[in-house]
Amino acid sequence: MSEILLRDDTGGIATLTLNAPDRLNALSDAMLAALQSQIDTLAQDRETRVVILKGNGKAFCAGHDLKEMQAGRQAEDGGQAYFADLFTRCARVMTGLMRLPQPVIAAPHGIATAAGCQMVASCDLAIAAEGTRFGVNGVNIGLFCSTPMVALSRNIPRKHAFEMLTTGDFIGTDRAEALGLINRAVPHDALNDEARALSEKIAAKLNPAVRIGKRIFYDQAEMGMDDAYAHAGAAMVENMMWRDTDEGISAFLEKRKPDWQA
Amino acid sequence: MSEILLRDDTGGIATLTLNAPDRLNALSDAMLAALQSQIDTLAQDRETRVVILKGNGKAFCAGHDLKEMQAGRQAEDGGQAYFADLFTRCARVMTGLMRLPQPVIAAPHGIATAAGCQMVASCDLAIAAEGTRFGVNGVNIGLFCSTPMVALSRNIPRKHAFEMLTTGDFIGTDRAEALGLINRAVPHDALNDEARALSEKIAAKLNPAVRIGKRIFYDQAEMGMDDAYAHAGAAMVENMMWRDTDEGISAFLEKRKPDWQA
Amino acid sequence: MSEILLRDDTGGIATLTLNAPDRLNALSDAMLAALQSQIDTLAQDRETRVVILKGNGKAFCAGHDLKEMQAGRQAEDGGQAYFADLFTRCARVMTGLMRLPQPVIAAPHGIATAAGCQMVASCDLAIAAEGTRFGVNGVNIGLFCSTPMVALSRNIPRKHAFEMLTTGDFIGTDRAEALGLINRAVPHDALNDEARALSEKIAAKLNPAVRIGKRIFYDQAEMGMDDAYAHAGAAMVENMMWRDTDEGISAFLEKRKPDWQA
Repeated sequence: MSEILLRDDTGGIATLTLNAPDRLNALSDAMLAALQSQIDTLAQDRETRVVILKGNGKAFCAGHDLKEMQAGRQAEDGGQAYFADLFTRCARVMTGLMRLPQPVIAAPHGIATAAGCQMVASCDLAIAAEGTRFGVNGVNIGLFCSTPMVALSRNIPRKHAFEMLTTGDFIGTDRAEALGLINRAVPHDALNDEARALSEKIAAKLNPAVRIGKRIFYDQAEMGMDDAYAHAGAAMVENMMWRDTDEGISAFLEKRKPDWQA
Repeated sequence: MSEILLRDDTGGIATLTLNAPDRLNALSDAMLAALQSQIDTLAQDRETRVVILKGNGKAFCAGHDLKEMQAGRQAEDGGQAYFADLFTRCARVMTGLMRLPQPVIAAPHGIATAAGCQMVASCDLAIAAEGTRFGVNGVNIGLFCSTPMVALSRNIPRKHAFEMLTTGDFIGTDRAEALGLINRAVPHDALNDEARALSEKIAAKLNPAVRIGKRIFYDQAEMGMDDAYAHAGAAMVENMMWRDTDEGISAFLEKRKPDWQA
Repeated sequence: MSEILLRDDTGGIATLTLNAPDRLNALSDAMLAALQSQIDTLAQDRETRVVILKGNGKAFCAGHDLKEMQAGRQAEDGGQAYFADLFTRCARVMTGLMRLPQPVIAAPHGIATAAGCQMVASCDLAIAAEGTRFGVNGVNIGLFCSTPMVALSRNIPRKHAFEMLTTGDFIGTDRAEALGLINRAVPHDALNDEARALSEKIAAKLNPAVRIGKRIFYDQAEMGMDDAYAHAGAAMVENMMWRDTDEGISAFLEKRKPDWQA
């Protein structure tokens, strides 16, 4: 029996592959649990430097597992407690990606809809296969994509987000890049290589510097300017005090490669 | 005598047409009152699903009624109380569009300047006639567009907003779309049809889902990530508990059309 | 001996020119002090209407002075107090540009990296020489650009900012304009003229209107919608009560040039 979430580790890069292609990698209870488990592990992992998130089969991820959700209605409360728990668990995964110490690169292909689109928006970076279609189309079945909206509306301009949410229309990779939902698109057969190349580029940087940077990035995004500078300034001081940063700057000034320990 | 604000209702879509073409549909006291009255009515209206906002004559809207404002100076306080009331009433209309339960689609043509540009920015969606010019050009007459800025700067990137505000320069529809002020531009003679088609697409969705989605959209925009997810998650649970959402998901899984009651 | 920061005043426009070309106009202690001194002076200056910020030599600004920073490590605390003070001083300059009453136009050429890129992001407007390269590449030497991030992430979309910060990759002027980091690019030999032309256009506006507008622009950016409107509305009332605004509106209605005193 194959696992629902595959993990491959090479050169400090962990690749997580959603592996429920029969269900378009739906975010079932099992898939959310598997993702949360990996997130919890990665949060403590000092060796892994970058995470890639991709999907097996025809689609990156088509959102929640609707059959499972409908089955949840059998409970005495009509599913209310289950749904509340489900969206809490889902939000924990989405914000978990953002709070991982490692940069997370989404590498979607095929379709990324509803919570699948939210997952792309929740990753720090995204390289998509050309032709990938993105949508927050829950509105088509009567379930507005309110939680995907949280991530999407922090990626793309307001009116374009509103249009996607209320029409359920898909956008393609050109539009997704122009709006800011993905960093860029590449031919499908180059997707793995390009995601890998980007990962390796980031993995070659001083690891603690990337980690402190990612943390401050999201912290300061919710602050006013003065608080943001106080917070980021403290991080710069901490960063400057590291042995490896001293070495990195010295090497640059001496036009040689740094000898980093981290 | 024709009314200053026309309303037409067809198929759950209300079209509001600014109808003071001689004054380029200026936001006079009478126009603001007529808009507020419609907003108050629509806020209680469960039948209307989408609102279109357009203008008669050469221009969508050229902003405040400057003659009326200058007349306000005759008061004993030089107009101060009148102006304070005017900008309060104007902001109430602008935020009222945002807080209507129905999505509001601006369909500007010709020019949309100052508070007219603000009105486009304040609508949830905008489809413009090709060639429409947008500007926040109060600075040209010594009155900086500080209130239009509130809506504009939440639609487009910071430096581009600042340039429009301090130079008074117009932008065209290509630029407006690229920056996020409008969703897209269409040929002028297709404007009504395209605004109508977008309205009908949204009107065909489950109405309460669109309503809860619009409300959460703006609520969560002002929250940090965790609060936003808590708020949006609660909306998802509420949305899931509706009979029509149950039906919508079941219909999707059974590959049939939903039988919605709302 | 030439000064590290040149100032030229013509027609109400102050041009500040970073003048340490041998060090790529690094933000050394001396450069930061010179900038702060000019900012303090300009903050009290009622005559100067617009500020242009540019650089002499091959580059606009390559960020902090790394040699000087490394020398700071000789202190008993390994430089910690010096670095804390340095980033505080630097943030004070960056937010000082934003809080100057005058609009500040960056006119970068060559390269604008790290705190140099931050300075472009911190100006209200930017016109760049075609071919200018922008980067926040501290990560390459082990020092994540956490403080430049504060300004950059308030200019451009989230994923594109994250990519620049974690890869250290440069972007060119086309990309910088599309993302919102600059207003536009012009041929290098037209840079001074174009920056001048934009300055003159803004300088010709009613000066107090531009000043109140700039202040409100950044104030309201950190507020929720209702507070933003209350704040901006109060500014509109104040603006309306000025003699010159009365004159500006009257002149417009009478189709004549305003006779402004400010």
